[in-house]
Amino acid sequence: MAYEAPINDMAFTLQAVAGLPKLEGLPGFEAYDADLIAPILEEAGKLARDVLAPLNQSGDAAGAQLTEDGVKAAPGFAEAYAQFREGGWMGLSVPEEWGGQGLPKALALAVMEMIHAANMSFGLCPLLSFGAIEALLHHGTDAQKQTYLPNLVAGNWTGTMNLTEPQAGSDVGALKTKAVPNEDGSYAISGQKIFITWGDHDIAENIIHLVLARLPDAPAGSRGVSLFLVPKFLVNEDGSLGARNSLKCIGLEKKIGIHASPTCVMEYDGATGWLIGEANKGLACMFTMMNSARLNVGLEGVAVGEAAYQTAFEYAQERKQGKVQGVDGPAPILHHADVRRTLTTMRARVAAARAICYACGVAADLADAATDEQARHAAKLREDLLTPIAKAWSTDMGVEVASLGLQIHGGMGFMNETLAAQLYRDARIAPIYEGTNGIQAIDLVGRKLSGTNGESMRLILGDIDATIREARATNEPQLVQIADRLRAGADALREATGWMLTAMKERDQDKALAGATAYLALAGDVIGGHFLTRAATAARSSDTATRARNLALAGFFAETALAEAPGRVPGITEGGQTFLEGSEALFGI
Amino acid sequence: MAYEAPINDMAFTLQAVAGLPKLEGLPGFEAYDADLIAPILEEAGKLARDVLAPLNQSGDAAGAQLTEDGVKAAPGFAEAYAQFREGGWMGLSVPEEWGGQGLPKALALAVMEMIHAANMSFGLCPLLSFGAIEALLHHGTDAQKQTYLPNLVAGNWTGTMNLTEPQAGSDVGALKTKAVPNEDGSYAISGQKIFITWGDHDIAENIIHLVLARLPDAPAGSRGVSLFLVPKFLVNEDGSLGARNSLKCIGLEKKIGIHASPTCVMEYDGATGWLIGEANKGLACMFTMMNSARLNVGLEGVAVGEAAYQTAFEYAQERKQGKVQGVDGPAPILHHADVRRTLTTMRARVAAARAICYACGVAADLADAATDEQARHAAKLREDLLTPIAKAWSTDMGVEVASLGLQIHGGMGFMNETLAAQLYRDARIAPIYEGTNGIQAIDLVGRKLSGTNGESMRLILGDIDATIREARATNEPQLVQIADRLRAGADALREATGWMLTAMKERDQDKALAGATAYLALAGDVIGGHFLTRAATAARSSDTATRARNLALAGFFAETALAEAPGRVPGITEGGQTFLEGSEALFGI
Repeated sequence: MAYEAPINDMAFTLQAVAGLPKLEGLPGFEAYDADLIAPILEEAGKLARDVLAPLNQSGDAAGAQLTEDGVKAAPGFAEAYAQFREGGWMGLSVPEEWGGQGLPKALALAVMEMIHAANMSFGLCPLLSFGAIEALLHHGTDAQKQTYLPNLVAGNWTGTMNLTEPQAGSDVGALKTKAVPNEDGSYAISGQKIFITWGDHDIAENIIHLVLARLPDAPAGSRGVSLFLVPKFLVNEDGSLGARNSLKCIGLEKKIGIHASPTCVMEYDGATGWLIGEANKGLACMFTMMNSARLNVGLEGVAVGEAAYQTAFEYAQERKQGKVQGVDGPAPILHHADVRRTLTTMRARVAAARAICYACGVAADLADAATDEQARHAAKLREDLLTPIAKAWSTDMGVEVASLGLQIHGGMGFMNETLAAQLYRDARIAPIYEGTNGIQAIDLVGRKLSGTNGESMRLILGDIDATIREARATNEPQLVQIADRLRAGADALREATGWMLTAMKERDQDKALAGATAYLALAGDVIGGHFLTRAATAARSSDTATRARNLALAGFFAETALAEAPGRVPGITEGGQTFLEGSEALFGI
Repeated sequence: MAYEAPINDMAFTLQAVAGLPKLEGLPGFEAYDADLIAPILEEAGKLARDVLAPLNQSGDAAGAQLTEDGVKAAPGFAEAYAQFREGGWMGLSVPEEWGGQGLPKALALAVMEMIHAANMSFGLCPLLSFGAIEALLHHGTDAQKQTYLPNLVAGNWTGTMNLTEPQAGSDVGALKTKAVPNEDGSYAISGQKIFITWGDHDIAENIIHLVLARLPDAPAGSRGVSLFLVPKFLVNEDGSLGARNSLKCIGLEKKIGIHASPTCVMEYDGATGWLIGEANKGLACMFTMMNSARLNVGLEGVAVGEAAYQTAFEYAQERKQGKVQGVDGPAPILHHADVRRTLTTMRARVAAARAICYACGVAADLADAATDEQARHAAKLREDLLTPIAKAWSTDMGVEVASLGLQIHGGMGFMNETLAAQLYRDARIAPIYEGTNGIQAIDLVGRKLSGTNGESMRLILGDIDATIREARATNEPQLVQIADRLRAGADALREATGWMLTAMKERDQDKALAGATAYLALAGDVIGGHFLTRAATAARSSDTATRARNLALAGFFAETALAEAPGRVPGITEGGQTFLEGSEALFGI
């Protein structure tokens, strides 16, 4: 099965739906113009198809291995990483002064989508490196930037995030790893970290670990957490690699998926590290990495969904079973209406999630670069609101769509050797890491909704109103019908938002939090439907096939997800009440 | 993690929801009275908890192995099977004249649920044996029954179903295995069958394969398929085991789940077999096995869902993370409202599916035993209609709930060693085998709905009306509110049913079939909600805890699934249109 990046869909989504043209001419994006999109996506598509996809199933079968010399990546991964590095892909959206190409993050997202779709295990390595780059860009000293950024941006070194400890998962503040000051201004880091993605490997020269730890005098909880940079090999003043630091991978987790991505137990035994940012402000620094990582994990949902769709579509064209009107002999199962419904569901949901993620990326770019203060503020609000939705809605979608893709394969889908089965296993991690989807929902209704007193959601609802007006103004019956469904969906989201804002203000927030996940799901559906409606409207100036495709996807999404939206409000406003009141009988608490 | 059968829930569902009391005193059930329920469920619960559950994860890790002497079951499975056999569990619902206990199938379902919940890989062996018993009971000659039934019913021998060939999956009629008449009235069976569950093993003395094959003069397609009984060891006239038949397992599939259930590639090389039922009527005979198997597979969804719930609930009580109002120090994650929402979703959906499956079982019992012709007819209609819903809705639910259970485990849920991860992998087969859920949806709107001109669904809608009246008559505000939601759900189902009946009559059935899966999902939600409403109403005469629990589950289901039901009608009636019209642009056909 060859993954073929949906370059036209991606470019169309970036340009006509996510708002990439808004970035042209802004400071920081001098290197960017729209003509770059197609050649970049095409080149990345080749890397994904020709280099990464062929290693996806072999990497799953072989996995990464822990040896006496550390972790060995699955066969072929080192060579593939070399091609990724040489292509300059790591620095795509990094400022040129640090060796990057100064292109929009939103464009880099599309490239990362291809990489994840072709090989999610591989994609996790640059995903984490990018987080480290972001943390250094925002919080590193000039000296730190000069020492570490060029090699990270070039892809010579990779990065990791070290948060989790056995007793400190979602509750990062419970961590115990210690950082004791050395005399030279460095720190001795000691402790054990678990679930460290690409925590060790042999595909790059050095690994820059960003590690959360606690200073001797640190207050308890999350306010006593600091961020440290701890390289695998210490870096000499001339930039060459020096002594091996006292840290190592002492175990690899046996996971149900992403086998080629080494998930390490890391032991820091007085390892030398340097403080990044202020003491006890590590969580804020970590959130810089985390926000970027959350959006990128959301994109993994899109990527796995797209891969699952392509695999299932190909299988449905090849597998013949049963008779169908108008087809001689056994018909490809694609001819069965039920199979096409499944494929349409997959494709519409992938398209909606892609638009949400790309739009979040454009908002992040604008939040950095917009020259107008108000525009920058609005973009930041959009980015903040869309991030938990991009993460949670897209990754839940990825699991659902991977499961649908497996189903289309029938019995073959349950076999380990089938790519669809691997995607089902791989997809399942994304709703968990970088903050579980439950945490995302709490972040959405807490910091993002209640924390802005609803301003960010009002902005998005305003965007939706504009989309409805534009669709209706076409007077095209199908678009008008879609707009009507979107209207009902937006009204439902507005109603749920009002309820949620009130509930969050009350003393007992459990009532609000009991509806948080259902609220995020509704918001994702409506915002996703909004983007698909915008796409169908914009596609009127495209070729017939693009028009028909976008209309069909928006129409299907409108008749399913958007039509269901109003009925989902009671699950948010009333559903929680039933189990909170029944909590004693149900759970004994 | 110890599985503890929810005996009270099961007994309550059988008695107060599924209608088991209707069977008392009917011919064939002389051996049954309600006092038997509790001791039988308790005894089965011990087998599940003490014998089968402890082998679930070890069986997953070890798997079944193909050796030169055939397939070896995972360690401990032979001993566990011996205990199952000695307990007489195989014959629970088989007529006493064949060595069974003459109890209702519905009661046997509850027992099978426990077995699947404790160890789905194990449960598949009796599931298939039971199918073989049913086929022989209905289609075997007296001599065949006498030769094979006593040992099958005693559990000394096990049974299999051999349908699938590489080119003949859902389209069974495409199979190529040959049956050539021998001179002594037997047949020489030759061909290869794939995906044969427990096709070979070492936990019982003999294996009775039921094999679909084609006679030399058979018409093409499904009308030329006959059913043959092909034992692993031929049976001598005195009942002792004779020569090894020329058939063997030549390969085991490597699957993502149910590792301890050997999924065999079977080779029949002129193996001796005997015709069961009439020549070329094999499909009808196979459907006898299949209908029983479909309901039992639906039950697997319930079982895995229950196991996932118990595992997640236990984890949520133990795992401490984060602070919660009113709890000192780190709180068990059960105290987070979002976790309780997930657990409530799981529990409500499992309860709804259990009720659907048990009610289908009671209908099957009544369809056999009711003395009144009209009651028998009505029961048969209910059984037929509920079977595809029990199979598809419950198994989709099983996958969804297993995924939710994994999510509650956070990062640990993604580890192979975690039971939640195994359940996620195991659950995924159930929507596929015994007719994919897409096939179930087509069966529902075709044979079951359109084929009875809607009579069967009208019966169920009448049942729902009665439930609404009873709930409203209590004047209890919460029950009245639930009844109102059920009313709206039932109206939605009625509307969708009317549309579907009309669409099925039209020449182009694609429009109807494009909505089949969405229709089945809606029907399952509404019928599930109906049973939960009935449970909450009936529980008013139970203890306070039972009352509160049933009310909370019915209330939550009403505010979510039932409240969403009306909004799902457009997905059935309009959704298909969008992708059928866009089919050229979307799929090139």
